[in-house]
Amino acid sequence: MIWTVYLSGEIHTDWREQIQAGAHEAGLPVEFTAPVTDHDASDAAGDLLGKPEKQFWRDHQSSKVNSIRTKTMIEQCDLAVIRFGDKYKQWNAAFDAGYCAALDTPYITLHDEDIIHPLKEVDAAAMAWAQTPEQVVEILRYVTTAK
Amino acid sequence: MIWTVYLSGEIHTDWREQIQAGAHEAGLPVEFTAPVTDHDASDAAGDLLGKPEKQFWRDHQSSKVNSIRTKTMIEQCDLAVIRFGDKYKQWNAAFDAGYCAALDTPYITLHDEDIIHPLKEVDAAAMAWAQTPEQVVEILRYVTTAK
Amino acid sequence: MIWTVYLSGEIHTDWREQIQAGAHEAGLPVEFTAPVTDHDASDAAGDLLGKPEKQFWRDHQSSKVNSIRTKTMIEQCDLAVIRFGDKYKQWNAAFDAGYCAALDTPYITLHDEDIIHPLKEVDAAAMAWAQTPEQVVEILRYVTTAK
Amino acid sequence: MIWTVYLSGEIHTDWREQIQAGAHEAGLPVEFTAPVTDHDASDAAGDLLGKPEKQFWRDHQSSKVNSIRTKTMIEQCDLAVIRFGDKYKQWNAAFDAGYCAALDTPYITLHDEDIIHPLKEVDAAAMAWAQTPEQVVEILRYVTTAK
Amino acid sequence: MIWTVYLSGEIHTDWREQIQAGAHEAGLPVEFTAPVTDHDASDAAGDLLGKPEKQFWRDHQSSKVNSIRTKTMIEQCDLAVIRFGDKYKQWNAAFDAGYCAALDTPYITLHDEDIIHPLKEVDAAAMAWAQTPEQVVEILRYVTTAK
Amino acid sequence: MIWTVYLSGEIHTDWREQIQAGAHEAGLPVEFTAPVTDHDASDAAGDLLGKPEKQFWRDHQSSKVNSIRTKTMIEQCDLAVIRFGDKYKQWNAAFDAGYCAALDTPYITLHDEDIIHPLKEVDAAAMAWAQTPEQVVEILRYVTTAK
Amino acid sequence: MIWTVYLSGEIHTDWREQIQAGAHEAGLPVEFTAPVTDHDASDAAGDLLGKPEKQFWRDHQSSKVNSIRTKTMIEQCDLAVIRFGDKYKQWNAAFDAGYCAALDTPYITLHDEDIIHPLKEVDAAAMAWAQTPEQVVEILRYVTTAK
Amino acid sequence: MIWTVYLSGEIHTDWREQIQAGAHEAGLPVEFTAPVTDHDASDAAGDLLGKPEKQFWRDHQSSKVNSIRTKTMIEQCDLAVIRFGDKYKQWNAAFDAGYCAALDTPYITLHDEDIIHPLKEVDAAAMAWAQTPEQVVEILRYVTTAK
Repeated sequence: MIWTVYLSGEIHTDWREQIQAGAHEAGLPVEFTAPVTDHDASDAAGDLLGKPEKQFWRDHQSSKVNSIRTKTMIEQCDLAVIRFGDKYKQWNAAFDAGYCAALDTPYITLHDEDIIHPLKEVDAAAMAWAQTPEQVVEILRYVTTAK
Repeated sequence: MIWTVYLSGEIHTDWREQIQAGAHEAGLPVEFTAPVTDHDASDAAGDLLGKPEKQFWRDHQSSKVNSIRTKTMIEQCDLAVIRFGDKYKQWNAAFDAGYCAALDTPYITLHDEDIIHPLKEVDAAAMAWAQTPEQVVEILRYVTTAK
Repeated sequence: MIWTVYLSGEIHTDWREQIQAGAHEAGLPVEFTAPVTDHDASDAAGDLLGKPEKQFWRDHQSSKVNSIRTKTMIEQCDLAVIRFGDKYKQWNAAFDAGYCAALDTPYITLHDEDIIHPLKEVDAAAMAWAQTPEQVVEILRYVTTAK
Repeated sequence: MIWTVYLSGEIHTDWREQIQAGAHEAGLPVEFTAPVTDHDASDAAGDLLGKPEKQFWRDHQSSKVNSIRTKTMIEQCDLAVIRFGDKYKQWNAAFDAGYCAALDTPYITLHDEDIIHPLKEVDAAAMAWAQTPEQVVEILRYVTTAK
Repeated sequence: MIWTVYLSGEIHTDWREQIQAGAHEAGLPVEFTAPVTDHDASDAAGDLLGKPEKQFWRDHQSSKVNSIRTKTMIEQCDLAVIRFGDKYKQWNAAFDAGYCAALDTPYITLHDEDIIHPLKEVDAAAMAWAQTPEQVVEILRYVTTAK
Repeated sequence: MIWTVYLSGEIHTDWREQIQAGAHEAGLPVEFTAPVTDHDASDAAGDLLGKPEKQFWRDHQSSKVNSIRTKTMIEQCDLAVIRFGDKYKQWNAAFDAGYCAALDTPYITLHDEDIIHPLKEVDAAAMAWAQTPEQVVEILRYVTTAK
Repeated sequence: MIWTVYLSGEIHTDWREQIQAGAHEAGLPVEFTAPVTDHDASDAAGDLLGKPEKQFWRDHQSSKVNSIRTKTMIEQCDLAVIRFGDKYKQWNAAFDAGYCAALDTPYITLHDEDIIHPLKEVDAAAMAWAQTPEQVVEILRYVTTAK
Repeated sequence: MIWTVYLSGEIHTDWREQIQAGAHEAGLPVEFTAPVTDHDASDAAGDLLGKPEKQFWRDHQSSKVNSIRTKTMIEQCDLAVIRFGDKYKQWNAAFDAGYCAALDTPYITLHDEDIIHPLKEVDAAAMAWAQTPEQVVEILRYVTTAK
């Protein structure tokens, strides 16, 4: 079995690359999927259809185009890792966590200790809380190889 | 048909009371449900089972007790209103939005214009974005009475 | 058992009233639901949230508000009657039929003989094709009372 | 991940070929499926089972045979593109849109600006509205390759 | 809790009346539903829509009208009793059993010993096999009252 | 797309072989699955676990072992063909039809004209009624190749 | 909202009565359901259908009759309480827990500290672990009344 | 078709190896999955995330990490074999059985005759009860190859 793991959340640090490199080095049977992580491209995802003047509708149009990718990938993954960084609102990450929870798709959260309290509902529905990408790789190794 | 409307999110202003009062005055066929909105009670929800020393496990235990209420009410509502205020992380509100989206339960967001951009994924899956409780009542009136 | 019957489609003739009157006279155990049938009100359903300048976004916003009502009622009905008149595109009626088909909710179509061919896919998934409101009432009587 | 994209709707112009050629040129990881697009063959799909005299039953029989193909392909696609041309009723296209909406399968509509209003419910449940096959290819490129 | 029990199958003996009378006498919290049991009325259920000349289409039309009732009632029941008599093909009864099995709705079969073998697949998915209406009443009493 | 087609029902004639040969000759993208069609083996499927003395329990035990195969194959097929011959009760075939109907899996019935009436409910939920294996192959060709 | 709470598990102490009395005294909006708790009656539940000689089949027949009640009540409850005592295997209680987990129905476990380790998988999927009936009542009060 | 078979339960004897060897020798089209069967590794599965002092939370954390593997594998298997040995509580095995039952995934139990009675609910929802690994292999052979 090849596991499909969706990497949701923060796009300003290289946590995705660290996890993917770690899994690759360990030869884990895992394929990773992710949203578009280029911030500007993501914001402009719908502009080719005609860029609305109002910010709300521009965001609306782009978000729906992005959701074609994200919703499909979340629904097809076996496991998600959801990363919360120390900046920004990151409501989309919490939204993805709720989406996974309702689908009963297991997810691991990845965040520092200082945001335990505001993330308590998100963590309560998670299968594990990790603080480092290494820990995530370690869990992936254990879960997918039983070693 | 009596509509069940779940009021999710911010607990520091009286937006729930405003919506409930407005619906009551208008005689709308609506019943409201909500999470426990007493912050301290919510944080201590699991303490009666033995209060863990570690913050993470105390939050974990309380959040799971709270989720018995919130998950059940979200799954049984016809419509949710999800409020984002101008303070705090409010990841639980975004989590609820994602949960509704995955269940295909319609929801309305209620927030100010200055957080349109960070809420774009949450708004993209919403049926409407309102800026005031009055607008929410107005939508409830239209949706439930066709007037 | 009280049957909930959703009346979808054409809003320019009094077919809904005829069916409801017929069911009432016959004392059938049926409750009817329907979309907002006031054309102008329906088109303006979202305007209270701020009327977008572009026709597309105005329609988008209003349609989503309307869908809170229509989607909920379709999902909660036991049976739908879907009416196609002799004018207009009526794509929303065909959309509702597809929605019912996917949910496995039985529906009856109500339309004249001259549009059999373009409606063949919609009729193929229907439980019955009626040409008059009286026939619909007759089916409701039979189905709900076994008489 | 190879994406399966179902191309629903109008059969009188070469929009399917344009999208497929565009996706092929761009080397996108996409496989396309579609209904039978030969109008006469489609109308006669059930005739081998015995051709009913009445138009209604002939259409009924053929539509059900066609639905073995269309329903299966819609249920197995990751994304649908639904095309509305400037002629004919095209209720089957709107039916497919409703079917996708109920299954929570994302779809893109493809139609000209002059039919925005009658398509407002269909567009409201879509993830994007495109006006040209090139735009559809562009969205497919972005969604499937993140580039 | 009031239990809804659907009584499917044979229409030529009074087994339904016996079960209903027995449940009534015992004061059980049970409501019964059933298909239309008047054979001629059932065969003619669709004739009001225009009676097709071909037997196949007449049966087809009537069966679909009947299925509005039967499918809805099966989907809404808590338990089904499915009766096989000693005459006729009774394929509709076996069809209902398969429908219940796929929905995971529990059902009890009611038939004589001499047809155990041809009913083995139907019985294998049943929760109980009864030989008399009295046994069915007895099971209903036990299941609904714990006495 | 390779279509998986489950061949349910009668085991005393070579209709399965005819369909498979026809599909093979035509080079159709179809894989066939089927229950165990050796009558004696099927009846004895559970005997290795200890053969119960009572006929009912022997049948029960064997039927459950067989259902591991049949239920799984029905749930994983894209289309079923359900054959009713001119002998025996064949309640398992009707059971499979009901199972497919509840799962919304399309099926084709294959039977002679003289049993139209007792099969009317089974046919009403079918996508097509064929009278010969050749017709089934013809439908498979059309549905899977659009030719 | 009236909450339906299923009380699963141990039948040799009066924990059910304690919870019900506590909820009644507190005036909680809760209705309780439960399996048949009379051990002998439960073991003999199927005997009226003919008592098989072999222990396996007698147990099989009775368990299936009992499951009509238990499966239905578990599927219709909002919350389950699952009690493990200090004696017996109690595999049915763990079975019910797994059933709830798969349905995403929240449950609370009720057991002493000395069996934490063997119950770790059952507890991991629970919303709370209580050690006394009083704690369960306390959680019910909080969850159902927000006080 | 390759069948995926999940081997749940007892980890202190070599029953898994026996079944796998038997299936391999017979050349069956079967792939096996299983939980982590190293007892100490399983108990410590979550320790890398920080080992909680309290036994309950250590078990909780490890069980959730393990459930990423077990829940995914159970949801993706075609068939489960659930083994109960003669020692220990083995509540996780009964939990898995309940999980399978709710998902309608067929399972075979594997246990000795002396625990028939306490396992009666678990066996009642099973498709077969085997007493030896050889019998399981025999059923796998029959079910997957029809021979």
